[in-house]
Parts: sequence; structure tokens; C-alpha cells
Amino acid sequence: MTEWYDEVYRDRTRYGLRVTRRLFEGRSDLQHVEVVETEQWGRVLVIDGIFMTSEKEEHFYHEMLVHPALVTAPSTARVLVVGGGDGGTVREVLRHPGVERCTMVEIDGLVVEASRAHLTTVGTAWDDPRLDLRIGDGIRFVAEADSASFDVVLLDGTDPVGPGEGLFDEAFYRHVARVLAPDGVFALQSESPIVTAPVFYEIQETLRRVFRRVHPYFGPAPLYSAGLWSWTHASRSVDPLAADPARVERIEAVTKHYNRAVHRAAFALPNEVRRQLEVC
Amino acid sequence: MTEWYDEVYRDRTRYGLRVTRRLFEGRSDLQHVEVVETEQWGRVLVIDGIFMTSEKEEHFYHEMLVHPALVTAPSTARVLVVGGGDGGTVREVLRHPGVERCTMVEIDGLVVEASRAHLTTVGTAWDDPRLDLRIGDGIRFVAEADSASFDVVLLDGTDPVGPGEGLFDEAFYRHVARVLAPDGVFALQSESPIVTAPVFYEIQETLRRVFRRVHPYFGPAPLYSAGLWSWTHASRSVDPLAADPARVERIEAVTKHYNRAVHRAAFALPNEVRRQLEVC
Repeated sequence: MTEWYDEVYRDRTRYGLRVTRRLFEGRSDLQHVEVVETEQWGRVLVIDGIFMTSEKEEHFYHEMLVHPALVTAPSTARVLVVGGGDGGTVREVLRHPGVERCTMVEIDGLVVEASRAHLTTVGTAWDDPRLDLRIGDGIRFVAEADSASFDVVLLDGTDPVGPGEGLFDEAFYRHVARVLAPDGVFALQSESPIVTAPVFYEIQETLRRVFRRVHPYFGPAPLYSAGLWSWTHASRSVDPLAADPARVERIEAVTKHYNRAVHRAAFALPNEVRRQLEVC
Repeated sequence: MTEWYDEVYRDRTRYGLRVTRRLFEGRSDLQHVEVVETEQWGRVLVIDGIFMTSEKEEHFYHEMLVHPALVTAPSTARVLVVGGGDGGTVREVLRHPGVERCTMVEIDGLVVEASRAHLTTVGTAWDDPRLDLRIGDGIRFVAEADSASFDVVLLDGTDPVGPGEGLFDEAFYRHVARVLAPDGVFALQSESPIVTAPVFYEIQETLRRVFRRVHPYFGPAPLYSAGLWSWTHASRSVDPLAADPARVERIEAVTKHYNRAVHRAAFALPNEVRRQLEVC
């Protein structure tokens, strides 16, 4: 009685999950939002037909987006998360005791609503008093925010189509650089260097026009069936390998995937990526 | 006019490729062998409905199976490859000038035949005079081979079903240990620590009963849509991080994925894997 739910990519590949139950379906002004129960990954959040996150493998993505920035930024007091409606990113951010305030700006309230109701193991920090959750346009929020008002900015956006598109623009990155403290760190998901290589390299090029230090890093994201996923650590001057040992030790005691060895390893550039970045 | 070819895993997930042309189909005594042309990965070898290798991403798998062993083994003069019918593994082995003889034992001649005819960019070393290609049972070959007659053994087998099943047994690994020189290195594909975790850990446990040093390592294998793939470096006494710098430098000049940074990074153990291996 179960059905396949397939995510189709460019009509060239598809990745299908056997769905045992449909838990939520709704349409906001912006997107079609679903939560389905699958045998492989538990509950899965789907936006516009694209698998976004799942109970059983979300930790790979969220730990890798958050911790490299949070253990290398000189201060972690003021963190801004753009996107991240499922709640996994702010959960990882708020594990760091150095975070005094985490502002999260998600454009689609329906994603938060669906996630709070149906993905309760992903978003576990909704009631943390340090969380300042706002439903609104992250691009506009960053454009209007005071300069140097955040120590870390994390971009947890969708792919560069639909409402997430402007999150890949130089104009947006320039505002991120402006709202960051001089020694602040920006980290973002930056697509796959394998199956979405053109987008990956375009993000790197754009970031390099804005930030002096731009370091992509790599890890698994099983739900995206992309072979390898990437995130990027961007800043004026922060060495992404110079992690605070105390912060790393504290966080690796509770993470499922991330630890000091994984942190260092993630920044190793495969030959193809290294060669391509040299000519970017 | 094109069709989807789906690999179905445990009726829980499926990974589909749009096929534009069927190039080969045949049945040996052992397996159903196909080569199809796909938009995503070029030509793909399929055995019993499972995607084995493809023109456009085979380098991830083959470079990671071969080079960590070939740059750490004290000698690389005598190499044995069990399986590897597509030819990608021996191609990478024979790039090392220290290899004097590479014996390859593939159980299914039809895989070699289909690959030689249709995957000409994968197997490029079929005519290398150092290659000793034998069609036969690798388990039997290893059981009958002289002790200490190889410096490196590489196991490039299929999943632990069908003819590849015995390649995951302790009895086979004991013969591998016997035919290896005392300081020889054994490397094998060892499935995914994410989507096939039970098999991954069983392989680790079995290897640990036979080899003193057993080090799994990780990397992408996009065609397997497993999030992360693994290989394992096993030996009596060889440190998998103590690579010969001259050999690394020579090989990383020609590889697409592998290099010294990737080598070191691959051996980083994610938290879940580290914890699980401690209780194995």
C-alpha cells in the first residue's frame, strides 16, 4: 500500500523513497510544503518536491553547517541564521554556551509550523530563551541590519531556485560581510561539487569577490544523493583550521558526526576541486 | 523515448538514471550483465540490476581503493586484484611504476568482455605487459596461492550477495593474510557506514579477527547513492598515514580525486563510526 516519492533532478536522475504515511501537506504563498514518513530516513521534509531534511540523517548536514564556524569564530555571542526553518541549525547553534542570542529569519512560516508539529527530533531548541525567531525575508533583514551586529552568520537556504535564489547573489553576500563583526565568520551550504558542480563553483567565485578567505569543505548529506555535499567557511581573516580546542572538545562529546578529525578532514580539497578553484 | 533504470535497495530507496541507449546485455553462468548509456554518468555497468561503475564517476571509487594501499605498502612489486572486472582498479594499480606484476582474478569473463567493449575509458591498461589477467574464482586462487607471494592485495568485489558473498568471510581474509608478504597491505571496498552500516561493521569485525591493523577510510562514490562509501586498509603493521611522499607526489599529479590531503582526510573517523568501532 506504500508508494514511491521521487525527487527528480534535471530529468537525468531520480532518488525515490518509499513513503508509508503522508503527515502534512500545505501551500504557503511561496512554496509547497510536505512531511512524509519513509522507511529509509524516518520523517522527511519536502519543499516543492525536493527532499530537504530527514529525522535519520539531518545531523550530517546541520552539524557540518554549524560547528566549523562556531568553533573558529573569535566570538559566538551573536549568531544570525538565515533560513533553517526545520530548526536543526539553531538546535546545533544553541548547543554552544558562548551563544548569547541566536536570531533566525525564515521566510516561510509554514516550514516552521510543519517542522514544529512533525519533525520534533530535528527542532529541539524552539523554546530556548536565546532564540529570536522571526518569520520574514532574510535578504531584507540582512540589508537592514546594523553593520557589525553579528559574530557569525549561517545561511541554511534551499537550492538557488524559488525564494532561495537571492541568497546566492553578490549583493546579499556584501550585506552579510557588512553585518558581520570584522573578525566574524559566514558559513553556508554551497551545493555539491559533483552533481551540481557549476553552482558550487559559482558560489565560490561570488564569495571570493566579497571575502578574503573562502574555504569550501565537504561531507556526506545522504538525503541529497549527490555523492558529496559542500559548505563554505568565509571571513576576512579567520583560519578555518584554527579551532578553539575547548569548544571542539565540548561539542564533539555530543555530536553524531562532527569531531576534530572530521573538521580538519572536511577542508581537504579533492584534486579536481583544487585545480578548478585555481582557475576560478 | 528514454526510460528510467532504477536500482532498488531493500524496497526502501531507489536511485534512477535516465537511460538513452542500451549498449550490452548478456547473461553468464553467474550474473546478468548490462552496459547502458545514461545522461548523468555516461556509460554505466550494471550487474544483476545494481549500478557497478560509470564512465563519469568511477575515478572516486578506483582511486580510493588503490592508492592508499599502493603508497603505504613497503613494496608494490607484486599486486593481486580480486574482482575488478571493469578494469578501473588495474588501471590505477599500473600507474605505479613500482608494480612489476599485477595479477587480476575476475570470476566472470562476461564482465571483462562487456567492459573492454563498452567502457573503454575505464579499463585502459588491458594491454599492459605487467598485467596477468585470469578469469577464475578469486577465493580459490587465493586459497591455492603460495604464502607471502604478494605485496598488496586489493579486493574489488560486488556487494555481499551472489558470487561476491564468500569475499566477506573470515576464511577468505585468512588466506589473504597468508598470501601477503609479512609487511603487505590488503585494501578492499567495505560498503557504506550509513546506508549499509551493519555490513560495514561486520566487515570491520571480521577483518580485526585476522589483521592487527584495520583502518576504514571514507569518500564519495556518487553512483552508489549511499551518502558516503568506505574502503578498508588492513595489514599486520603498516601505518595507513605513513605514505611514501615520492609515490604520493607522482600519483597525485595524474589523479582526479586522490591527493595527499584526501588520503589523510579519508581516515578521519566520524563520531558515530568511532563510537561503534570501540564496542565492536
